[in-house]
Amino acid sequence: MTTAAPTTRLGDRFRHAFRGHPAGVAIITALGRTGPVGITSSSVASVSADPAVLGFSLQSLRGSAAEIGSARSLLVHLLTADNLALARRFATSDTDRFGVGTAWSPLDSGEPLLEGTGTVLRCSPLTRTEVGSALVVTAAVDEVRDAASLAAPLVYQDRAYHCVSAWTVLP
Amino acid sequence: MTTAAPTTRLGDRFRHAFRGHPAGVAIITALGRTGPVGITSSSVASVSADPAVLGFSLQSLRGSAAEIGSARSLLVHLLTADNLALARRFATSDTDRFGVGTAWSPLDSGEPLLEGTGTVLRCSPLTRTEVGSALVVTAAVDEVRDAASLAAPLVYQDRAYHCVSAWTVLP
Repeated sequence: MTTAAPTTRLGDRFRHAFRGHPAGVAIITALGRTGPVGITSSSVASVSADPAVLGFSLQSLRGSAAEIGSARSLLVHLLTADNLALARRFATSDTDRFGVGTAWSPLDSGEPLLEGTGTVLRCSPLTRTEVGSALVVTAAVDEVRDAASLAAPLVYQDRAYHCVSAWTVLP
Repeated sequence: MTTAAPTTRLGDRFRHAFRGHPAGVAIITALGRTGPVGITSSSVASVSADPAVLGFSLQSLRGSAAEIGSARSLLVHLLTADNLALARRFATSDTDRFGVGTAWSPLDSGEPLLEGTGTVLRCSPLTRTEVGSALVVTAAVDEVRDAASLAAPLVYQDRAYHCVSAWTVLP
Protein backbone atom coordinates (compact mmCIF):
# COMPACT_ATOMS: atom_id res chain seq x y z
CA MET A 1 0.00 0.00 0.00
CA THR A 2 1.35 3.38 -0.94
CA THR A 3 0.48 6.58 0.80
CA ALA A 4 0.52 9.84 -1.12
CA ALA A 5 1.96 12.90 0.55
CA PRO A 6 -0.72 14.92 2.37
CA THR A 7 -0.08 17.96 0.18
CA THR A 8 -0.65 16.00 -3.01
CA ARG A 9 -3.81 14.46 -1.64
CA LEU A 10 -5.10 17.89 -0.64
CA GLY A 11 -4.26 19.16 -4.14
CA ASP A 12 -6.09 16.23 -5.73
CA ARG A 13 -9.15 16.69 -3.53
CA PHE A 14 -9.08 20.42 -4.29
CA ARG A 15 -8.88 19.75 -8.06
CA HIS A 16 -11.79 17.31 -7.81
CA ALA A 17 -13.90 19.83 -5.89
CA PHE A 18 -13.36 22.63 -8.41
CA ARG A 19 -13.74 20.28 -11.36
CA GLY A 20 -17.36 20.08 -10.21
CA HIS A 21 -17.81 23.82 -9.66
CA PRO A 22 -19.41 25.41 -12.75
CA ALA A 23 -18.10 28.59 -14.34
CA GLY A 24 -18.89 30.91 -17.20
CA VAL A 25 -16.38 30.82 -20.06
CA ALA A 26 -14.44 33.72 -21.54
CA ILE A 27 -11.54 34.25 -23.93
CA ILE A 28 -9.00 36.87 -22.88
CA THR A 29 -6.84 38.33 -25.65
CA ALA A 30 -4.00 40.84 -25.84
CA LEU A 31 -1.36 42.08 -28.23
CA GLY A 32 1.67 40.02 -27.23
CA ARG A 33 5.33 40.64 -28.00
CA THR A 34 5.21 38.91 -31.36
CA GLY A 35 1.51 39.01 -32.24
CA PRO A 36 -1.95 38.32 -30.87
CA VAL A 37 -2.29 36.03 -27.85
CA GLY A 38 -5.37 34.59 -26.20
CA ILE A 39 -6.52 32.01 -23.67
CA THR A 40 -9.81 30.44 -22.63
CA SER A 41 -10.58 31.29 -19.00
CA SER A 42 -13.25 30.02 -16.62
CA SER A 43 -12.24 32.42 -13.84
CA VAL A 44 -13.55 35.77 -15.11
CA ALA A 45 -15.91 37.43 -12.60
CA SER A 46 -17.30 40.82 -11.75
CA VAL A 47 -15.49 42.48 -8.84
CA SER A 48 -17.14 45.91 -8.70
CA ALA A 49 -19.67 47.71 -10.92
CA ASP A 50 -18.87 51.30 -9.82
CA PRO A 51 -16.04 51.53 -10.70
CA ALA A 52 -16.36 48.78 -13.31
CA VAL A 53 -13.72 46.20 -12.42
CA LEU A 54 -13.42 42.53 -13.32
CA GLY A 55 -11.08 39.86 -12.03
CA PHE A 56 -9.56 36.61 -13.27
CA SER A 57 -6.74 34.28 -12.33
CA LEU A 58 -3.99 32.56 -14.28
CA GLN A 59 -3.01 29.16 -12.90
CA SER A 60 0.46 29.36 -14.40
CA LEU A 61 2.48 31.96 -16.21
CA ARG A 62 3.74 29.97 -19.16
CA GLY A 63 3.20 30.77 -22.82
CA SER A 64 0.17 32.89 -23.67
CA ALA A 65 -0.87 33.16 -20.01
CA ALA A 66 2.40 34.95 -19.23
CA GLU A 67 1.69 37.51 -21.94
CA ILE A 68 -1.91 37.97 -20.73
CA GLY A 69 -0.57 38.40 -17.20
CA SER A 70 1.74 41.23 -18.18
CA ALA A 71 -0.33 42.94 -20.91
CA ARG A 72 -1.28 46.59 -20.48
CA SER A 73 -4.62 46.22 -22.25
CA LEU A 74 -6.91 43.20 -22.52
CA LEU A 75 -10.09 42.18 -24.32
CA VAL A 76 -12.36 39.87 -22.34
CA HIS A 77 -14.86 38.09 -24.59
CA LEU A 78 -17.79 36.46 -22.75
CA LEU A 79 -18.76 33.34 -24.67
CA THR A 80 -22.07 31.85 -25.76
CA ALA A 81 -22.97 28.33 -26.85
CA ASP A 82 -22.25 29.47 -30.43
CA ASN A 83 -18.60 29.92 -29.44
CA LEU A 84 -17.96 26.31 -28.40
CA ALA A 85 -15.34 25.65 -31.10
CA LEU A 86 -13.58 28.92 -30.23
CA ALA A 87 -13.52 28.03 -26.52
CA ARG A 88 -11.91 24.67 -27.33
CA ARG A 89 -9.39 26.20 -29.75
CA PHE A 90 -8.18 28.76 -27.20
CA ALA A 91 -7.87 26.05 -24.54
CA THR A 92 -5.65 23.86 -26.76
CA SER A 93 -1.85 24.05 -26.73
CA ASP A 94 0.27 23.91 -29.85
CA THR A 95 -2.40 25.21 -32.17
CA ASP A 96 -2.48 28.41 -34.21
CA ARG A 97 -5.30 30.03 -32.26
CA PHE A 98 -5.49 33.05 -34.57
CA GLY A 99 -5.07 31.03 -37.78
CA VAL A 100 -7.63 29.84 -40.30
CA GLY A 101 -10.97 29.23 -38.60
CA THR A 102 -10.69 32.13 -36.16
CA ALA A 103 -12.41 35.32 -37.34
CA TRP A 104 -10.68 38.28 -35.72
CA SER A 105 -9.31 41.73 -36.41
CA PRO A 106 -7.06 44.06 -34.42
CA LEU A 107 -8.49 47.17 -32.75
CA ASP A 108 -6.70 50.43 -33.57
CA SER A 109 -4.91 49.95 -30.27
CA GLY A 110 -3.73 46.48 -31.34
CA GLU A 111 -5.75 44.05 -29.19
CA PRO A 112 -7.22 41.18 -31.22
CA LEU A 113 -11.03 41.31 -31.29
CA LEU A 114 -12.71 37.96 -31.91
CA GLU A 115 -15.84 38.11 -34.04
CA GLY A 116 -19.19 36.66 -33.06
CA THR A 117 -18.75 36.26 -29.30
CA GLY A 118 -21.02 37.68 -26.59
CA THR A 119 -20.19 40.95 -24.85
CA VAL A 120 -16.56 42.11 -25.10
CA LEU A 121 -14.95 44.20 -22.34
CA ARG A 122 -11.80 46.23 -23.02
CA CYS A 123 -9.85 46.62 -19.80
CA SER A 124 -6.61 47.76 -18.19
CA PRO A 125 -5.03 45.73 -15.37
CA LEU A 126 -5.20 47.43 -11.97
CA THR A 127 -3.67 44.92 -9.54
CA ARG A 128 -1.66 41.73 -9.90
CA THR A 129 -1.34 39.44 -6.88
CA GLU A 130 1.06 36.48 -7.01
CA VAL A 131 -0.11 33.36 -5.19
CA GLY A 132 2.44 30.57 -5.55
CA SER A 133 2.90 30.18 -9.30
CA ALA A 134 -0.56 31.66 -10.00
CA LEU A 135 -1.54 35.26 -10.59
CA VAL A 136 -4.79 37.01 -9.63
CA VAL A 137 -5.49 40.03 -11.83
CA THR A 138 -8.07 42.79 -11.41
CA ALA A 139 -8.70 45.08 -14.38
CA ALA A 140 -10.59 48.34 -14.81
CA VAL A 141 -13.15 48.07 -17.60
CA ASP A 142 -12.71 50.96 -20.03
CA GLU A 143 -15.34 49.96 -22.57
CA VAL A 144 -18.20 47.46 -22.87
CA ARG A 145 -18.63 46.54 -26.53
CA ASP A 146 -21.70 44.84 -27.93
CA ALA A 147 -24.00 44.49 -24.94
CA ALA A 148 -25.12 41.18 -26.34
CA SER A 149 -28.15 39.08 -25.54
CA LEU A 150 -27.97 37.21 -22.25
CA ALA A 151 -29.29 34.05 -23.89
CA ALA A 152 -27.42 30.74 -24.08
CA PRO A 153 -24.10 31.49 -22.38
CA LEU A 154 -21.39 28.83 -22.21
CA VAL A 155 -20.65 27.03 -18.91
CA TYR A 156 -17.69 24.76 -18.10
CA GLN A 157 -18.17 21.98 -15.55
CA ASP A 158 -16.67 18.53 -15.02
CA ARG A 159 -14.43 18.85 -18.10
CA ALA A 160 -17.40 19.49 -20.38
CA TYR A 161 -19.06 22.51 -21.91
CA HIS A 162 -22.70 23.13 -21.06
CA CYS A 163 -25.26 25.74 -21.93
CA VAL A 164 -27.83 27.28 -19.59
CA SER A 165 -31.04 28.72 -20.96
CA ALA A 166 -34.69 29.23 -20.08
CA TRP A 167 -34.95 25.43 -20.05
CA THR A 168 -32.44 24.98 -17.23
CA VAL A 169 -33.98 27.49 -14.77
CA LEU A 170 -34.91 25.95 -11.42
CA PRO A 171 -38.38 26.89 -10.17
CA MET B 1 -34.11 63.25 -23.97
CA THR B 2 -31.90 62.69 -20.95
CA THR B 3 -28.32 61.59 -21.10
CA ALA B 4 -26.86 59.53 -18.27
CA ALA B 5 -23.34 60.29 -17.12
CA PRO B 6 -20.78 58.16 -18.98
CA THR B 7 -19.60 56.49 -15.77
CA THR B 8 -23.11 55.39 -14.88
CA ARG B 9 -23.73 54.12 -18.38
CA LEU B 10 -20.49 52.12 -18.29
CA GLY B 11 -21.52 50.71 -14.90
CA ASP B 12 -24.94 49.75 -16.24
CA ARG B 13 -23.47 48.11 -19.32
CA PHE B 14 -20.97 46.30 -17.13
CA ARG B 15 -23.75 45.05 -14.80
CA HIS B 16 -25.77 43.87 -17.80
CA ALA B 17 -22.77 42.01 -19.22
CA PHE B 18 -22.03 40.14 -15.99
CA ARG B 19 -25.70 39.50 -15.29
CA GLY B 20 -25.45 37.23 -18.33
CA HIS B 21 -22.18 35.56 -17.31
CA PRO B 22 -22.92 32.26 -15.52
CA ALA B 23 -21.24 31.27 -12.26
CA GLY B 24 -21.19 28.42 -9.79
CA VAL B 25 -22.79 29.18 -6.44
CA ALA B 26 -21.21 28.84 -3.00
CA ILE B 27 -22.01 29.89 0.56
CA ILE B 28 -19.09 31.27 2.56
CA THR B 29 -19.43 31.15 6.35
CA ALA B 30 -17.34 32.29 9.30
CA LEU B 31 -17.58 32.81 13.01
CA GLY B 32 -18.40 36.51 13.28
CA ARG B 33 -18.07 38.82 16.26
CA THR B 34 -21.47 37.93 17.65
CA GLY B 35 -22.20 34.57 16.07
CA PRO B 36 -22.21 32.73 12.75
CA VAL B 37 -22.23 34.76 9.53
CA GLY B 38 -22.64 33.63 5.93
CA ILE B 39 -23.24 34.90 2.42
CA THR B 40 -24.12 33.41 -0.95
CA SER B 41 -21.32 34.06 -3.44
CA SER B 42 -21.09 33.53 -7.18
CA SER B 43 -17.44 34.56 -7.36
CA VAL B 44 -15.65 31.57 -5.82
CA ALA B 45 -13.01 30.13 -8.17
CA SER B 46 -9.90 28.00 -8.07
CA VAL B 47 -6.69 30.04 -8.19
CA SER B 48 -4.00 27.37 -7.76
CA ALA B 49 -4.11 23.62 -7.01
CA ASP B 50 -0.54 23.26 -5.67
CA PRO B 51 -0.66 25.01 -3.26
CA ALA B 52 -4.46 24.75 -2.94
CA VAL B 53 -5.74 28.32 -3.09
CA LEU B 54 -9.20 29.67 -3.95
CA GLY B 55 -10.35 33.22 -4.57
CA PHE B 56 -13.57 35.22 -4.27
CA SER B 57 -14.63 38.84 -4.23
CA LEU B 58 -16.95 40.86 -2.03
CA GLN B 59 -18.74 43.68 -3.87
CA SER B 60 -19.23 45.68 -0.70
CA LEU B 61 -18.08 45.39 2.87
CA ARG B 62 -21.34 45.92 4.71
CA GLY B 63 -22.95 43.50 7.17
CA SER B 64 -22.02 39.85 6.85
CA ALA B 65 -19.68 40.55 3.92
CA ALA B 66 -17.53 42.75 6.15
CA GLU B 67 -17.19 39.93 8.65
CA ILE B 68 -16.39 37.41 5.89
CA GLY B 69 -13.81 39.87 4.55
CA SER B 70 -11.96 40.09 7.85
CA ALA B 71 -12.41 36.52 9.16
CA ARG B 72 -9.32 34.44 9.94
CA SER B 73 -10.94 31.16 8.93
CA LEU B 74 -13.69 30.47 6.39
CA LEU B 75 -15.82 27.57 5.21
CA VAL B 76 -16.64 27.61 1.49
CA HIS B 77 -19.61 25.35 0.71
CA LEU B 78 -20.02 24.51 -3.01
CA LEU B 79 -23.75 24.18 -3.71
CA THR B 80 -25.84 21.69 -5.63
CA ALA B 81 -29.36 21.95 -7.00
CA ASP B 82 -30.57 20.45 -3.69
CA ASN B 83 -29.33 23.62 -1.95
CA LEU B 84 -31.51 26.08 -3.86
CA ALA B 85 -33.47 27.24 -0.78
CA LEU B 86 -30.21 27.67 1.16
CA ALA B 87 -28.68 29.73 -1.67
CA ARG B 88 -31.69 32.04 -1.65
CA ARG B 89 -31.75 32.35 2.15
CA PHE B 90 -28.08 33.37 2.33
CA ALA B 91 -28.61 35.93 -0.45
CA THR B 92 -31.51 37.60 1.38
CA SER B 93 -31.05 40.54 3.74
CA ASP B 94 -32.86 40.92 7.03
CA THR B 95 -33.44 37.22 7.52
CA ASP B 96 -32.11 34.94 10.26
CA ARG B 97 -29.88 32.90 7.98
CA PHE B 98 -28.90 30.46 10.74
CA GLY B 99 -32.41 30.20 12.23
CA VAL B 100 -35.07 27.55 11.84
CA GLY B 101 -34.81 25.91 8.43
CA THR B 102 -31.00 26.00 8.26
CA ALA B 103 -29.30 22.79 9.41
CA TRP B 104 -25.84 23.65 10.70
CA SER B 105 -23.40 23.00 13.51
CA PRO B 106 -20.18 24.70 14.58
CA LEU B 107 -16.82 23.02 13.99
CA ASP B 108 -14.59 22.72 17.06
CA SER B 109 -12.83 25.82 15.73
CA GLY B 110 -16.13 27.72 15.61
CA GLU B 111 -16.92 28.08 11.89
CA PRO B 112 -20.55 27.20 11.08
CA LEU B 113 -20.79 24.09 8.88
CA LEU B 114 -23.96 23.86 6.80
CA GLU B 115 -25.36 20.37 6.39
CA GLY B 116 -26.20 18.75 3.09
CA THR B 117 -24.21 20.92 0.69
CA GLY B 118 -21.63 19.74 -1.86
CA THR B 119 -17.92 19.82 -1.07
CA VAL B 120 -16.86 22.10 1.79
CA LEU B 121 -13.42 23.75 1.86
CA ARG B 122 -11.97 25.11 5.09
CA CYS B 123 -9.55 27.92 4.33
CA SER B 124 -7.44 30.75 5.71
CA PRO B 125 -7.22 34.10 3.90
CA LEU B 126 -3.85 34.76 2.30
CA THR B 127 -4.25 38.09 0.49
CA ARG B 128 -6.86 40.87 0.53
CA THR B 129 -6.82 43.41 -2.32
CA GLU B 130 -9.06 46.47 -2.08
CA VAL B 131 -10.53 47.66 -5.39
CA GLY B 132 -12.78 50.67 -4.85
CA SER B 133 -15.31 49.53 -2.27
CA ALA B 134 -14.82 45.87 -3.22
CA LEU B 135 -12.38 43.33 -1.82
CA VAL B 136 -10.67 40.46 -3.64
CA VAL B 137 -9.65 37.66 -1.27
CA THR B 138 -7.42 34.66 -1.86
CA ALA B 139 -7.43 31.90 0.73
CA ALA B 140 -5.25 28.84 1.34
CA VAL B 141 -7.35 25.69 1.52
CA ASP B 142 -6.47 23.75 4.68
CA GLU B 143 -9.00 20.95 4.34
CA VAL B 144 -11.39 19.58 1.69
CA ARG B 145 -14.37 18.00 3.47
CA ASP B 146 -16.78 15.61 1.78
CA ALA B 147 -15.46 15.28 -1.74
CA ALA B 148 -19.03 15.14 -2.95
CA SER B 149 -20.45 13.97 -6.23
CA LEU B 150 -19.92 16.33 -9.14
CA ALA B 151 -23.53 15.88 -10.26
CA ALA B 152 -26.11 18.64 -10.47
CA PRO B 153 -24.25 21.74 -9.26
CA LEU B 154 -26.04 25.05 -8.93
CA VAL B 155 -25.43 27.86 -11.47
CA TYR B 156 -26.52 31.51 -11.21
CA GLN B 157 -27.22 33.42 -14.43
CA ASP B 158 -29.52 36.28 -15.42
CA ARG B 159 -30.96 36.57 -11.88
CA ALA B 160 -32.05 32.92 -11.88
CA TYR B 161 -30.70 29.67 -10.52
CA HIS B 162 -29.99 26.91 -13.00
CA CYS B 163 -28.63 23.40 -12.83
CA VAL B 164 -26.20 21.76 -15.22
CA SER B 165 -26.13 18.00 -15.61
CA ALA B 166 -25.48 15.28 -18.17
CA TRP B 167 -28.50 16.66 -20.04
CA THR B 168 -26.96 20.09 -20.59
CA VAL B 169 -23.62 18.91 -22.04
CA LEU B 170 -22.90 20.31 -25.50
CA PRO B 171 -21.64 17.74 -28.01
